[in-house]
Amino acid sequence: MPSIDPGARALLEAPNFAHVATLRQDGTILNVPVWVDIEGDDVILNSAEGRAWPANLRRNGQITVTVSNSENPYEFVSITGSLAGEDKETADDNIDALAKKYLGQDEYPFRQPGEERVKFIITPDRVYHHGG
Amino acid sequence: MPSIDPGARALLEAPNFAHVATLRQDGTILNVPVWVDIEGDDVILNSAEGRAWPANLRRNGQITVTVSNSENPYEFVSITGSLAGEDKETADDNIDALAKKYLGQDEYPFRQPGEERVKFIITPDRVYHHGG
Repeated sequence: MPSIDPGARALLEAPNFAHVATLRQDGTILNVPVWVDIEGDDVILNSAEGRAWPANLRRNGQITVTVSNSENPYEFVSITGSLAGEDKETADDNIDALAKKYLGQDEYPFRQPGEERVKFIITPDRVYHHGG
Repeated sequence: MPSIDPGARALLEAPNFAHVATLRQDGTILNVPVWVDIEGDDVILNSAEGRAWPANLRRNGQITVTVSNSENPYEFVSITGSLAGEDKETADDNIDALAKKYLGQDEYPFRQPGEERVKFIITPDRVYHHGG
């Protein structure tokens, strides 16, 4: 497994957005900004059942997560990884932690009625840290 | 051809970075931040011979360009498009214009000896503007 160097880790720990790219069924690429976190050497993403990129990730198994430094857009880390697991039990706590990180709020404020959160665990296969 | 609405156009005209996602030969996704411009209804990218994403684009023909609003990361436009053409004749003028847009400089300051710039013209097949 490639290592995430300390500078890349700092990009993931700071409230920078990730752009997550997954493959649609028609072979084109979906690329959208989302919140991101890191746990150990895994990249953590959080979504809700019914969204497009998790469906792509589950079908195809691979994803590329690129995090640019919001204070210096010429620095970024791009992680191409594989879906290592999902966790629904800790997904609500995780989205609250992400709300704290990105919004400074203790609780995720955008919950929809009936929304079922999912935490996705991504194992890095390839890490490219540029401009750090 | 899907239209680029005025709000999405404004995102592309402002000095926001694009994240461009292309398919590597092994089927994984490359996703990197670059400068971006718009001409008419085409998305304009500029690179140099030998770089990775242009090689992917030439081989596969498709790309997804996502531009988030640097002042409000919850607004973004994601354009899945096709390579419509390349232009080397205007590529140097174009990279100077991009340097003006992103750096406020009249001339692109990062030219390497022997560097051969290429302007890529992307026709939008699918446009998704979120949060505008």
